[in-house]
Amino acid sequence: MRADSRERMFLRSALAPDSRVQADSELLPWIDSRRAASPFEVQRAPLGSLDGWSFDQDGNLGHRSGKFFRIEGLHVSTNAGPTRQWEQPIMDQPEIGILGIVAKRFDGLIHFLMQAKMEPGNIDPVQITPTVQATRSNYTQVHQGARPRYVEYFLERERGRMLVDQLQYEQASTFLGKRNRNMVVLVEDEVPVHEDFRWLTLGQVKRLLTRPNLVSMDARTVLSCIPLVDQTDGRHPEALAASAVEDPLNDFQLGLLASMSPSGRALHSDEDIVGWLAGLRCQYELDVERTALGSMPCWTWSELDITHDGGRYFSVVGVHVQATNREVGSWDQPLVASTERGLAAFLVKRINDVPHLLIQGKVEPGNPDIVAVGPTVQCALNGQRVRDGSSRFMDTVLSAPKDSVWFSSVQSEEGGRFYHVENDYRIVEIDPSGAPDEPDGYMWVTLRQLNQLLRFGQVNIEARSLLSCLSLI
Amino acid sequence: MRADSRERMFLRSALAPDSRVQADSELLPWIDSRRAASPFEVQRAPLGSLDGWSFDQDGNLGHRSGKFFRIEGLHVSTNAGPTRQWEQPIMDQPEIGILGIVAKRFDGLIHFLMQAKMEPGNIDPVQITPTVQATRSNYTQVHQGARPRYVEYFLERERGRMLVDQLQYEQASTFLGKRNRNMVVLVEDEVPVHEDFRWLTLGQVKRLLTRPNLVSMDARTVLSCIPLVDQTDGRHPEALAASAVEDPLNDFQLGLLASMSPSGRALHSDEDIVGWLAGLRCQYELDVERTALGSMPCWTWSELDITHDGGRYFSVVGVHVQATNREVGSWDQPLVASTERGLAAFLVKRINDVPHLLIQGKVEPGNPDIVAVGPTVQCALNGQRVRDGSSRFMDTVLSAPKDSVWFSSVQSEEGGRFYHVENDYRIVEIDPSGAPDEPDGYMWVTLRQLNQLLRFGQVNIEARSLLSCLSLI
Repeated sequence: MRADSRERMFLRSALAPDSRVQADSELLPWIDSRRAASPFEVQRAPLGSLDGWSFDQDGNLGHRSGKFFRIEGLHVSTNAGPTRQWEQPIMDQPEIGILGIVAKRFDGLIHFLMQAKMEPGNIDPVQITPTVQATRSNYTQVHQGARPRYVEYFLERERGRMLVDQLQYEQASTFLGKRNRNMVVLVEDEVPVHEDFRWLTLGQVKRLLTRPNLVSMDARTVLSCIPLVDQTDGRHPEALAASAVEDPLNDFQLGLLASMSPSGRALHSDEDIVGWLAGLRCQYELDVERTALGSMPCWTWSELDITHDGGRYFSVVGVHVQATNREVGSWDQPLVASTERGLAAFLVKRINDVPHLLIQGKVEPGNPDIVAVGPTVQCALNGQRVRDGSSRFMDTVLSAPKDSVWFSSVQSEEGGRFYHVENDYRIVEIDPSGAPDEPDGYMWVTLRQLNQLLRFGQVNIEARSLLSCLSLI
Repeated sequence: MRADSRERMFLRSALAPDSRVQADSELLPWIDSRRAASPFEVQRAPLGSLDGWSFDQDGNLGHRSGKFFRIEGLHVSTNAGPTRQWEQPIMDQPEIGILGIVAKRFDGLIHFLMQAKMEPGNIDPVQITPTVQATRSNYTQVHQGARPRYVEYFLERERGRMLVDQLQYEQASTFLGKRNRNMVVLVEDEVPVHEDFRWLTLGQVKRLLTRPNLVSMDARTVLSCIPLVDQTDGRHPEALAASAVEDPLNDFQLGLLASMSPSGRALHSDEDIVGWLAGLRCQYELDVERTALGSMPCWTWSELDITHDGGRYFSVVGVHVQATNREVGSWDQPLVASTERGLAAFLVKRINDVPHLLIQGKVEPGNPDIVAVGPTVQCALNGQRVRDGSSRFMDTVLSAPKDSVWFSSVQSEEGGRFYHVENDYRIVEIDPSGAPDEPDGYMWVTLRQLNQLLRFGQVNIEARSLLSCLSLI
């Protein structure tokens, strides 16, 4: 991390007082202790050898229980972008899972019960995750294991008050219409804290986000749903930001806060933004059809793995896992592995002195609504694109002067489905007087407007994940 | 229409001064003149005899061009409601059409260019429709006819400023995932007015809504998208309500207006409403699979028509149309015909002295998102249900004392796809102190909150249509 003055200002809250419950200085040692306490071993294994998994006659990969997820082939045709037709593997997991965080006040400050959890696809095996991440198979015990800890707080509504409860899409480039229920429940009663769990403030989680690959994608998507300030009706049961402020706000944060106000002067009306999305959804066609994984052109399918012939995009690999602290002691599973590092970035510009973020309408094959709101840049950082500048605004992000970089860190995708998939996350401010304006398919919106789109499930996971890195506290 | 005092108050705006452009007293004679000027003849015809339409080997019905729409079979299974599995005909029309109204100020007051248009399924052949209603086939001239009048105002963005541009679902009980683009464009330039068109104020259209079957469903859905007051950011380009007020507001209207304010005390937070919908979408399963129209149990398929063996729901019939004022002079087409009259109603209750509407989570087979927001009551008014009271709140609506009925009229479905399908529309206020509370699947929301859900495409066409009957002006 660079430590220039403006970035220091942005990260000043990293120096905020410790939580009343768990001092910052104890967090990393606790994570280390969890890693040490629970041996967790991941070995790559040929797809054809995975216990419980098998290929059907079309070469599609599934579990013998019929649950968890399947990997199938997808034929995509679209009128968006330079490539109009392609085949690709896609994960099919039709169940809606739960990503839930239990919250509780200590000395008036809301804390979140976060877990140190290991997943086979993580780079360092342990990450900070929500209290609960459970597929329906998990909590209905398809795999004969124990019911996930704390899941009752999300299944039994009398346990607390639901602060967040939103359906959000997962990675629509590799999942077919997969959504999870992102939940935060505020409880009053004493909550027993298992040794893999700790109460953290929002500020503490945000500080951990400045480290590479430590806060899981699942944690990030839930955090992105937490309304930073009350947006519309003065009636949100908990003004979460107010409940979590540990420290005075800096200039950037004050600007963001101002942009959350309904009276903040946005470049576009809310109605215009809905119309912009409607227009893109009419302009772009997207036809997806399931096809046999085993016979896709441009992909090589073998007992070992499934790879793209050009070495691009991603591959499907297998792992054998041995764990001591999971519902079952050992298992095999396929994972989607990265072949290219990605870049996800927001450009920020002050317009009418209010910070605006540049959003992009993103066509993704797994999104049944064709177009979702994505970050300014969302692309693979491969040599080809870096050279030919074919991904718009990538150069602006990569060549930004240090003092305009508000956030920069490396974050990885969920390690239960993705193997070592890393993205560079950047939030970069550009000069108010300068380009870029709004090319087709892009729009400058305030944080309030983006949060509104997010609440209604219109924002993709890459943009949500970046938003979770924004810190108001 | 009953003329008790409270209803008179509600309808007082019906007595408001005439538009500067078109006096109220001239409207009905103009409609009569259009009916007289353009002979339009509709004859029932056997499905098997429709020119250009044919059954394929599965008995599915389609047009030889491959365009317009198809009628296929659908197998539905769900865990919602008393019937868990059924087959039904479904209309498949994957294109997104345009429902557009051209708007223009005269003496400061916004007027809407409405058309007197004939459709084969209308009871009286002529209805008031949007300026443009065009399928993609229409405006790309698949049927070799003329391009629909005024469609350029919606295809060429420089023609005006878009006030409304939202994707909204059609009838999800009979259409498979069909959406239209609901648009209102405000223009400055002179607009040539063809004799089938007139400039009407919003108030004039709302007054026509108190008459049976005169304002088309397409007009109603577009009107429902017009934000009555600016909701959030003070930045909507046109405060439409303010631009269209002809008359002081009455007590009911003032209450509704108050409920549009962000500071109006709503029973539930916006976040809670999103969570309520998320919960329903997780609770309910809905699997739909296309099946052969010609071999559905419980339906009788013939060259003449397709009917339900119990005489329930709807049937599919054919018509032969001769017209003088349409893109083509004559055509044949199938239509969905009603076998039962429907009821669509909102209960209204003052909570914290703010009017709230009772919404219902409605599972409908053609909605890919499983659950949409529906009105309090949306059901067939058949003898069985009236007798056994199986449709919740139907009795409350039907037995409401006269002075609590805010709106009551008969409106029909779009006559280009539906044949004589009528619904009773009611808006009924219940005592603040009385039942009902909120059973599972129902929620009291303010008009502001309902408009927010509507803007993001969460509200079904029956609820939208009812909302269009609410009058603030």
